[in-house]
Amino acid sequence: MKDKEKLSDWIKRIPSLDAEAQELARVHMDQLTKPLGALGELETIWIRLAGITGQIQPQIGNKRVAVFCGDHGVTAEGVSAYPAEVTALMMENFSRGKAAVHVFASRCGARVTVVDVGSRSESLPDGVMDRKVRQGTANMAQGPAMSREEALESIRIGMEIAADLKEEGVQLAATGEMGIGNTTPAAAVASVLTGKPVERVTGRGTGLDEAGLRRKQEVIRRSLEVNHPDPMDPLDVLAKVGGLEIGGMAGFVLGAARHRMPVVLDGVISTVAGLVAVRIAPQSRPYLFASHLSVEPAHGVLLEELGLQPLITAGMRLGEGSGAVLAFPLFDAAETAAREMATFSELGL
Amino acid sequence: MKDKEKLSDWIKRIPSLDAEAQELARVHMDQLTKPLGALGELETIWIRLAGITGQIQPQIGNKRVAVFCGDHGVTAEGVSAYPAEVTALMMENFSRGKAAVHVFASRCGARVTVVDVGSRSESLPDGVMDRKVRQGTANMAQGPAMSREEALESIRIGMEIAADLKEEGVQLAATGEMGIGNTTPAAAVASVLTGKPVERVTGRGTGLDEAGLRRKQEVIRRSLEVNHPDPMDPLDVLAKVGGLEIGGMAGFVLGAARHRMPVVLDGVISTVAGLVAVRIAPQSRPYLFASHLSVEPAHGVLLEELGLQPLITAGMRLGEGSGAVLAFPLFDAAETAAREMATFSELGL
Repeated sequence: MKDKEKLSDWIKRIPSLDAEAQELARVHMDQLTKPLGALGELETIWIRLAGITGQIQPQIGNKRVAVFCGDHGVTAEGVSAYPAEVTALMMENFSRGKAAVHVFASRCGARVTVVDVGSRSESLPDGVMDRKVRQGTANMAQGPAMSREEALESIRIGMEIAADLKEEGVQLAATGEMGIGNTTPAAAVASVLTGKPVERVTGRGTGLDEAGLRRKQEVIRRSLEVNHPDPMDPLDVLAKVGGLEIGGMAGFVLGAARHRMPVVLDGVISTVAGLVAVRIAPQSRPYLFASHLSVEPAHGVLLEELGLQPLITAGMRLGEGSGAVLAFPLFDAAETAAREMATFSELGL
Repeated sequence: MKDKEKLSDWIKRIPSLDAEAQELARVHMDQLTKPLGALGELETIWIRLAGITGQIQPQIGNKRVAVFCGDHGVTAEGVSAYPAEVTALMMENFSRGKAAVHVFASRCGARVTVVDVGSRSESLPDGVMDRKVRQGTANMAQGPAMSREEALESIRIGMEIAADLKEEGVQLAATGEMGIGNTTPAAAVASVLTGKPVERVTGRGTGLDEAGLRRKQEVIRRSLEVNHPDPMDPLDVLAKVGGLEIGGMAGFVLGAARHRMPVVLDGVISTVAGLVAVRIAPQSRPYLFASHLSVEPAHGVLLEELGLQPLITAGMRLGEGSGAVLAFPLFDAAETAAREMATFSELGL
């Protein structure tokens, strides 16, 4: 896939949801022993899963978090509370299964796939897939973060990973990321794609103080001035002020939608990737689910833009896909309710 | 326990939290491979559990939902979308393990205890404990829902159930309820104890239309006028415009606090019972955790009054303890994070 035209052809194959399966799932939900609609978003989730899978009783037992890793040239501007080297250290941690996303996933029976699409590391620990497009992005405060071809390549890799997971039997996927500095490109992309001012969508990331936050906002403003990303061209925005793991996750969403695989988004970086995907292919939107609402100010803005309701509001800001995995048990609860609850007619009502 | 004085003596024995265990749990949380505080409420929960249990690595594997059932004379005023007979039918459903709370509990390895403190049923299905104080409350729109002695008795039963569960080894408890019509007394109690106007704390319950909602508000206003509950005397409020399952849950909270057992609240009725308990014994407050934010308008008001943060915002309004059980996996996630995540020093940082 060397040009945007091929991407356009490909995304035309994203199917629309199965309206009949959705209607049958809705009818079943309404027969369960509970007031109509009393399970709220759990019912909405369930009905949409039926539409995505075409099954009246969707199977979601096989769950996977795809964690995309990348580094960011813009860390040279001092936009993160942690040094860029932590990306590599956290990939070590992933390799040992000791990061938050792993312990949460293991607890709820999900697995984790880690893909390096753009870290600076020369060598990778066991269990991290090497699909590196380049060793970190360039400093977007001085020029484009990457070329348009590289952005497209990161998307292509994400699409392939999604297709592979579907092939492996994954029934419910989530996106996650690791990349020191990546709330900076996330805020830049969010600002361009939603039209919101930089200060509205920029947060403290892993823990900036007030001065750090102002510096980060200034760096983002400079990046937008230097690069002039075109809000109508999501690939241009991704290339100029985005990141490789953002591209990987956006591609993952497109690939998942193409293969009827539901995707749970995590925090602000995962969700900005979801918006990139939806701007490339609006048909991918109904395949997306929100998980939690993070404390990053752009997150709520992005979820609203996508029309998604977060399920968990626990003030988290960890990334890695950790919040998405924490929402998996709520999907399981919807599945269990539909399968095991009595109907009113069984109770004689 | 025949008088309020004995209750006062008893609640004096509620211990305060273990500050040293909390501090040690906090130090450990800060060493894990994540940005400081990035797990948000999960960290807060964990630290408070340490304070409650006095353990640096609290054990919460043994989980139980205590579901209190009662009927309400005020249903004669047409305040519910469902007939009062549904309380008995739902107890049948509990007995068969086919209600929402059971299928959710079973999914996350928790158990359910069902206690009838005041239904109209003459005979109970297997598995429902008979601790009936009276067969449903009187119609509070015409006089007190119950006597002060009956209210106290419902509290005493809840306290005993909590003590029994602690004895059985329960480490994390939740409250739930079933009682057609019970959002009406819940709103009445919420209005009196928080000082908020009736229309601010009255919702559609299981599904009233606009006219039904106005009638319900009118019935609650009349109940308050007829009974003049004393806002400074929670037992008076419970007796005059409360319910037996509300008393049972309030007693459960007091008993749990007395025995250092953390309690997760469910929706609006469960939470109003939590507020009754805290007004009786302010020392019980740190033993309480919020689970979800329901669509009932009083729920947010009550959680704010209690200073509790809901973890799940899924627009649910089912009761039974179902929302509290859905939060259990988030408690498990906090436990797993503390036990299994790597520390920064292990990573060489």
